[in-house]
Amino acid sequence: MDLVTFGEAMVRLTPPNCQRLEQARSLDVYVGGGELNVAVGAARLGLGTSWVSRLSDNQLGRMIANRAREQGVDTGHVLWTRDDRAGLYFAELGAAPRASSVLYDRANSAIAGVAPGMVDWKRAFKGTRWFHTSGITPALSDSAAATVSEALGAAKSAGLTVSYDLNFRSKLWSADKARAVQEPLMQHVDILIVTEEDARVVFGITSGKASGEYANIDAESYVDVARQLQDKFDVGVVAITLRENPRVWQNSWSALVLAEGKVHRAPTYEVEIVDRIGAGDAFAAGLIFGKLCHDSWEKAVRYGTALSALKHTVPGDFSQSTLAEVEQLLKGTSLRVSR
Amino acid sequence: MDLVTFGEAMVRLTPPNCQRLEQARSLDVYVGGGELNVAVGAARLGLGTSWVSRLSDNQLGRMIANRAREQGVDTGHVLWTRDDRAGLYFAELGAAPRASSVLYDRANSAIAGVAPGMVDWKRAFKGTRWFHTSGITPALSDSAAATVSEALGAAKSAGLTVSYDLNFRSKLWSADKARAVQEPLMQHVDILIVTEEDARVVFGITSGKASGEYANIDAESYVDVARQLQDKFDVGVVAITLRENPRVWQNSWSALVLAEGKVHRAPTYEVEIVDRIGAGDAFAAGLIFGKLCHDSWEKAVRYGTALSALKHTVPGDFSQSTLAEVEQLLKGTSLRVSR
Amino acid sequence: MDLVTFGEAMVRLTPPNCQRLEQARSLDVYVGGGELNVAVGAARLGLGTSWVSRLSDNQLGRMIANRAREQGVDTGHVLWTRDDRAGLYFAELGAAPRASSVLYDRANSAIAGVAPGMVDWKRAFKGTRWFHTSGITPALSDSAAATVSEALGAAKSAGLTVSYDLNFRSKLWSADKARAVQEPLMQHVDILIVTEEDARVVFGITSGKASGEYANIDAESYVDVARQLQDKFDVGVVAITLRENPRVWQNSWSALVLAEGKVHRAPTYEVEIVDRIGAGDAFAAGLIFGKLCHDSWEKAVRYGTALSALKHTVPGDFSQSTLAEVEQLLKGTSLRVSR
Amino acid sequence: MDLVTFGEAMVRLTPPNCQRLEQARSLDVYVGGGELNVAVGAARLGLGTSWVSRLSDNQLGRMIANRAREQGVDTGHVLWTRDDRAGLYFAELGAAPRASSVLYDRANSAIAGVAPGMVDWKRAFKGTRWFHTSGITPALSDSAAATVSEALGAAKSAGLTVSYDLNFRSKLWSADKARAVQEPLMQHVDILIVTEEDARVVFGITSGKASGEYANIDAESYVDVARQLQDKFDVGVVAITLRENPRVWQNSWSALVLAEGKVHRAPTYEVEIVDRIGAGDAFAAGLIFGKLCHDSWEKAVRYGTALSALKHTVPGDFSQSTLAEVEQLLKGTSLRVSR
Amino acid sequence: MDLVTFGEAMVRLTPPNCQRLEQARSLDVYVGGGELNVAVGAARLGLGTSWVSRLSDNQLGRMIANRAREQGVDTGHVLWTRDDRAGLYFAELGAAPRASSVLYDRANSAIAGVAPGMVDWKRAFKGTRWFHTSGITPALSDSAAATVSEALGAAKSAGLTVSYDLNFRSKLWSADKARAVQEPLMQHVDILIVTEEDARVVFGITSGKASGEYANIDAESYVDVARQLQDKFDVGVVAITLRENPRVWQNSWSALVLAEGKVHRAPTYEVEIVDRIGAGDAFAAGLIFGKLCHDSWEKAVRYGTALSALKHTVPGDFSQSTLAEVEQLLKGTSLRVSR
Amino acid sequence: MDLVTFGEAMVRLTPPNCQRLEQARSLDVYVGGGELNVAVGAARLGLGTSWVSRLSDNQLGRMIANRAREQGVDTGHVLWTRDDRAGLYFAELGAAPRASSVLYDRANSAIAGVAPGMVDWKRAFKGTRWFHTSGITPALSDSAAATVSEALGAAKSAGLTVSYDLNFRSKLWSADKARAVQEPLMQHVDILIVTEEDARVVFGITSGKASGEYANIDAESYVDVARQLQDKFDVGVVAITLRENPRVWQNSWSALVLAEGKVHRAPTYEVEIVDRIGAGDAFAAGLIFGKLCHDSWEKAVRYGTALSALKHTVPGDFSQSTLAEVEQLLKGTSLRVSR
Repeated sequence: MDLVTFGEAMVRLTPPNCQRLEQARSLDVYVGGGELNVAVGAARLGLGTSWVSRLSDNQLGRMIANRAREQGVDTGHVLWTRDDRAGLYFAELGAAPRASSVLYDRANSAIAGVAPGMVDWKRAFKGTRWFHTSGITPALSDSAAATVSEALGAAKSAGLTVSYDLNFRSKLWSADKARAVQEPLMQHVDILIVTEEDARVVFGITSGKASGEYANIDAESYVDVARQLQDKFDVGVVAITLRENPRVWQNSWSALVLAEGKVHRAPTYEVEIVDRIGAGDAFAAGLIFGKLCHDSWEKAVRYGTALSALKHTVPGDFSQSTLAEVEQLLKGTSLRVSR
Repeated sequence: MDLVTFGEAMVRLTPPNCQRLEQARSLDVYVGGGELNVAVGAARLGLGTSWVSRLSDNQLGRMIANRAREQGVDTGHVLWTRDDRAGLYFAELGAAPRASSVLYDRANSAIAGVAPGMVDWKRAFKGTRWFHTSGITPALSDSAAATVSEALGAAKSAGLTVSYDLNFRSKLWSADKARAVQEPLMQHVDILIVTEEDARVVFGITSGKASGEYANIDAESYVDVARQLQDKFDVGVVAITLRENPRVWQNSWSALVLAEGKVHRAPTYEVEIVDRIGAGDAFAAGLIFGKLCHDSWEKAVRYGTALSALKHTVPGDFSQSTLAEVEQLLKGTSLRVSR
Repeated sequence: MDLVTFGEAMVRLTPPNCQRLEQARSLDVYVGGGELNVAVGAARLGLGTSWVSRLSDNQLGRMIANRAREQGVDTGHVLWTRDDRAGLYFAELGAAPRASSVLYDRANSAIAGVAPGMVDWKRAFKGTRWFHTSGITPALSDSAAATVSEALGAAKSAGLTVSYDLNFRSKLWSADKARAVQEPLMQHVDILIVTEEDARVVFGITSGKASGEYANIDAESYVDVARQLQDKFDVGVVAITLRENPRVWQNSWSALVLAEGKVHRAPTYEVEIVDRIGAGDAFAAGLIFGKLCHDSWEKAVRYGTALSALKHTVPGDFSQSTLAEVEQLLKGTSLRVSR
Repeated sequence: MDLVTFGEAMVRLTPPNCQRLEQARSLDVYVGGGELNVAVGAARLGLGTSWVSRLSDNQLGRMIANRAREQGVDTGHVLWTRDDRAGLYFAELGAAPRASSVLYDRANSAIAGVAPGMVDWKRAFKGTRWFHTSGITPALSDSAAATVSEALGAAKSAGLTVSYDLNFRSKLWSADKARAVQEPLMQHVDILIVTEEDARVVFGITSGKASGEYANIDAESYVDVARQLQDKFDVGVVAITLRENPRVWQNSWSALVLAEGKVHRAPTYEVEIVDRIGAGDAFAAGLIFGKLCHDSWEKAVRYGTALSALKHTVPGDFSQSTLAEVEQLLKGTSLRVSR
Repeated sequence: MDLVTFGEAMVRLTPPNCQRLEQARSLDVYVGGGELNVAVGAARLGLGTSWVSRLSDNQLGRMIANRAREQGVDTGHVLWTRDDRAGLYFAELGAAPRASSVLYDRANSAIAGVAPGMVDWKRAFKGTRWFHTSGITPALSDSAAATVSEALGAAKSAGLTVSYDLNFRSKLWSADKARAVQEPLMQHVDILIVTEEDARVVFGITSGKASGEYANIDAESYVDVARQLQDKFDVGVVAITLRENPRVWQNSWSALVLAEGKVHRAPTYEVEIVDRIGAGDAFAAGLIFGKLCHDSWEKAVRYGTALSALKHTVPGDFSQSTLAEVEQLLKGTSLRVSR
Repeated sequence: MDLVTFGEAMVRLTPPNCQRLEQARSLDVYVGGGELNVAVGAARLGLGTSWVSRLSDNQLGRMIANRAREQGVDTGHVLWTRDDRAGLYFAELGAAPRASSVLYDRANSAIAGVAPGMVDWKRAFKGTRWFHTSGITPALSDSAAATVSEALGAAKSAGLTVSYDLNFRSKLWSADKARAVQEPLMQHVDILIVTEEDARVVFGITSGKASGEYANIDAESYVDVARQLQDKFDVGVVAITLRENPRVWQNSWSALVLAEGKVHRAPTYEVEIVDRIGAGDAFAAGLIFGKLCHDSWEKAVRYGTALSALKHTVPGDFSQSTLAEVEQLLKGTSLRVSR
């Protein structure tokens, strides 16, 4: 295995055609969850990946594991339980001026019952190079948070590179709680991935320069945020994804990495958006791939941003891209029909 | 209002085309729940009906209330809460030798938090003639069971006729618990509706005559069960629905009522089954309609059985029939295309 | 051209999955109408066929003509009008004990405005051998009835064989009116196609032997009906289709022809029913094909019944069978998967 | 009741995925009609609303009433008839340079047969504060126009505030007829809602300043139009909706109200368009809500415009928004995924 | 690994709702192929399984491998090629009297190019107990046939149990060719799986007793066939699946195994048929599971028949059952809704 | 006949909702192919058109022919064969930065087997005015290329106007082969239709002015290309379509014709793109219509560009527009809802 990720995946239910849930007479069924999304994105690029989680041993739990396997992700370290339920979430896709929105129904899901000692991290990490998790997992329950801490420690002990996506979810916990729980975790983290907004909301870190939602993607102000994060937590690498979204169906998308004192910027992509959920996770997947395979933060941020740009163009949480497609985009792709 | 019912309704998710859940890439969305199904069936026949429940004030809770209103059911006495979640259930439709199956995901739903004192029963029952609930509601939580008890008492005090469908759900509670909780409730019940199997499993009441699942619908053995139930609980009226199901897609369906010492039998319908969930509830709806409008148990069992037979022919929990359609079937309908 | 038919075709809207119309959130779109169905069935077997009608020059009218052409039916003699509307019908597919049912919305459709003199029958019939119409067309309007009369006369003058399917539609007119209008038309008819029930309802002709809907398909009693029809109207050939429908999803289906004093019986097919609308029309198509290509009533009734049996197995009004498929069924087909 | 509206609602059939009707093999089924759309929009914001109409007592008529009830609209004053038909319309959704387009099939629908004396307006208006109708209803038939006149008079007599949306439909009647029929109605109107184009086409009122379709939304020229309308008809309040549509999938949308000599302007929203049919009606609904609940034209135009902007983002004629969503948009919403 | 299978899997395209291909405007997409179906059925019961094949390295090839992995089948020994194409097949589901039918479009697919030496059988068989293939693979090309021979020899050398399903496909090759190619392969086979019909068509082996398609499932005549096969090819075990199909939607289904001179018969299941393609493969999967896990031919034939009966009830080629479901059916299941 | 076209048409399979093929569980089914698309576009405008091709006599071949007939295209000169297969292609619709993409599966399709002498061109061209083919047909096989040459010669001999769309497909052959095969064909061509890119890739012809993909549509540089083509091949008329595609869902679209030394430019349309496949063919169809009906290159380029702009707005390869719609767009259409 190159990569192990740890977190929840849910059955996702989405009304077709931008319908609201109240209107829906059928729902499209996807599977998604931040850390599984990362594993899928990376597996599709060719990394050996494993996803650790806890699932209910029923049809919905099996559906989640099946879809992970379908994409080439190993599920051999998943814990199975007869208790608890599968997490669900309902996602309504929007159109300006209505943002897309998520209704979580994940309380008491199987992974909320995960606790330190349940996962054999030593075995799970055997032969692995990288561990990734995100700020969603500790938000699920106190015991899940404790397990994240356990996992991060075990990963460091085992010599893995550790990346952590802040992924603040205001519908799961408050910013205060998020900060209190996560600040201690940062000591184990090698690469911290954030959006500018989450850095501000959770850690109170803002650029000196004013920066509104619709601002131009202004590299400098974000670099400032990255430096503050690096200083505050003594994290070697900070990656920030940059989004301008004057519309729901079209955004500008880019990212930067601050590593070893150097800033690496990806190109900005104009993306037409079929479904942006999971785009941040695709960024992490590409970043990990780029670093692991090319040992270059310059490449890492470029692979991450390109994979993520492509993720916006497909329905569902999962990246659907192949390595060849990402590399073609990195070379500069045409928008003519390929035939 | 002619009729008030009390219980949970859920968002129901069903894979199309007899798919298993694991295969599903889209799910059909219905709303259903025993007591709402009864209210809908009766409202469509022309009764004024109101459904009392507790719902989460989010898109799913609103969907449930909307679909009740769509069918003409009053939702003015529904309690709304910002806490809790909407109950869900997943229903897989079968084909012989695979029975249809239900995966409940209703723990901690809004109605599980209902408690005595929350519903203003006096106001809810004002001007009403009949109250109906079922053995599902007390299975949801202890406080829900206490509320059922409260409601039944209030209904009797207000002079309403009270019907109670035993509706045993082995996935919600054990037979022992079901018996312990429900036996005390029977004192308030005027009409008890059961299947032969539930009478046996919950109350240990069986016909002296041996009766297996695929037996011919043998009136006599079922009358015996009805008499025992009547004796045991001093219930004035017992209604038993009778089903032979050698196949999943085709059943024989009938019912009998034991009232004032007299047995009333409905004709037996050969039903082709699109979706049998809710058929028992349609029986209750027709029974209540027949009794309220024609004051005749003979008519009641016939309306109940006919409405229920028609329910098998449509997807979703709800009856879709009009009074005219039921009465045409009672006269003996043709199976030629009506054109 | 081998065959010309004359009548209305409508846009047909059907809820999927045996839903009732009130439930439907989408409707499947077909095109159908008795005489067009006959033309399609015959064209797919290889006959040159033309369909005469009157259509609104809008999207719905074009849809109707397009679907006729798709199946190889010539629409060169269709009249186009900017006035009027396209006829529609809504078809709900049933399940026992709920019969399938049709809601017509065809009043004031373009063909209701057809009138004698509008169609150049001489040109339409040029080089043609057979003319077919049905009892639906004169039910649409007085001027349509007059045009049917005109067409029948023109067909006889031009030396065509004329077949007429009684096709009584109680939702369009009364039996009395149907009899009054159609009795005079019978003088032009060479082959009269009826069901036993329509013969009884419209012309009061019944077999001496009692015959209920679910009776066994009893050749003798139907032959008696055929003889009476032949005597009453001096029609050379009478064809009667025979259906037992104890279920909606499974019927027995057969037919007989009385011609030149001889009775020809087809085998009886057990049909599993996807959609039986148009089955009678497929019978007429096969009958016409069999007679035109093999000059044998024995073959005609066999082709008609086989084509019709196959029609039950596909959705929509139109036959979808090829000549090879019909002939394979006539040889006795296997129900194993063909692979 | 806070609000009563009067008019037709139809079954609306729309091909999915921007297909043309000729291509469609299935049609999405909605219910819509200007005045029902207004009632739905207002009911969803919390007003007590009732919709008066005339419907055929068949599956389609019931579907229309059911969908109104689903959204919380009272249908107790609807007239039911066994005659006539349900109005239908087919809507093709476009893409630049192809505009969306509507094919009406509403001639001879039940409401065309409505006539003075049929509706008991006194009873319908009892306890109500506001009456709304539009220029579609008088276009349906002479007796419908007479009934509109009767309703407007009754509303004024009963002391209701009366709003009237000009809603010119060139496929229903000519501009000349529209003017002749509607000018006398204006005496009863308190609030007249128009688009700049309809004011020009029906009443010949244009701004002195040249104004083409793609012009910038230029407040001044529209204020001029509003003043002329106010002067011509002595209407207290004129509301004008303002749309720039250089594309079919993206528009700018705003509105102004001229009331008591003062102009109130709403912000301009950039809307991504899933389905704009019903957007004008959502504006009226929000306007009525804002005026009734906040007694402020400033608020009214803002609620109207925001509700209407949100309507563009959902399929179907009906607003799907809640009050909370509208008020969040009025505060300035983010386009980030809400999670 | 417990089990390795070898053969082709294709993208399968099926029109929904019993449509004919000519009617289809959308096609359901499955993946299937005899030997992959066996691997899936066994993997879902808990066996470690691997599927060996050759796939085109494009979207369709990846789809095939993904769906295998989704079900838990290892694809690590699949050969990938940039040349060639993915095999496709179109399946039309029938209704009596129209049989389901398959249109193959698999010529020149990637596996047709497989040749001896390409697969490293030693590695593929490492640690494995059982090898399964079928009579479809040698029908694909001469080099595929040679590779089957190579694989069978390698399996025997490696000490694996070898099962072979005759699976005659008349659309791929003639019975004569099938016999000529396969007779030499039989020397490596431990368990031969056949239908009575294929035994007759390919090897000319029939029961002395007359046996038509619709005959009762007559154990004795089939035992006779099994004995002849055993004698002719010196195969230790012969399994025969028994089907009565008087209808397309309902069959009787059973099987027998002749092993070590003893006949083992499974119960007969009445199956309602959603999709019977793959049922024979599910039989093989259950047989292999039963033998490997319980070392009993009695159990093997019972697991095989039960798993296969359940396969008929789900769409697609793949078994969707779990071990728990099969064992519940073997205990005798109820057809009541499980809830 | 006004127009005969010659080429392949395929069954086209497209995942709905911008899904990637790997995700698809259903595929939308269209029929398309350059020369059939031209025939359809022209037939819908009112020209008599015939399409010559070679098709497999199975369900897929019939589907292709049926869909051609549905649109009014004559298929009487299609060759039918029992051998070979129907060509297929899979089209994934994109979103920026992912271009739409095509996976061909057309090798060994029926038309690849077409050879000189098979088509009776004299009969096919009888009474015809125009012949159109494209650079796809000679790419299919050597014998297909030879047949194109035969057809072009026959068309010139018969006095037809000949148009040829270069339509380079890099997935079918190399630019070198394309040039070598097609240069000799140019002698028969009266109107050559190209994109700027294909002119460059195949013939090495570029404007002296630099011109990148996202450049403004700069008439002058394209005129230069047209002149070079005209000079090189001595073709009377060159038409160049001009596309700017900074997005996948929105393009600018225009065209120019160089004829008799004069340049004719169409207006530029901003198109919102549902499906751009077939847009170039719609251009050819409109061009042919305009020239044949108005004998004006000015009109021709305008009809071509407008028809093509409208094609972008509908799914599938075929134009769905009527003459009235095109002419309304040429007059300058509104984007308001037409109602």
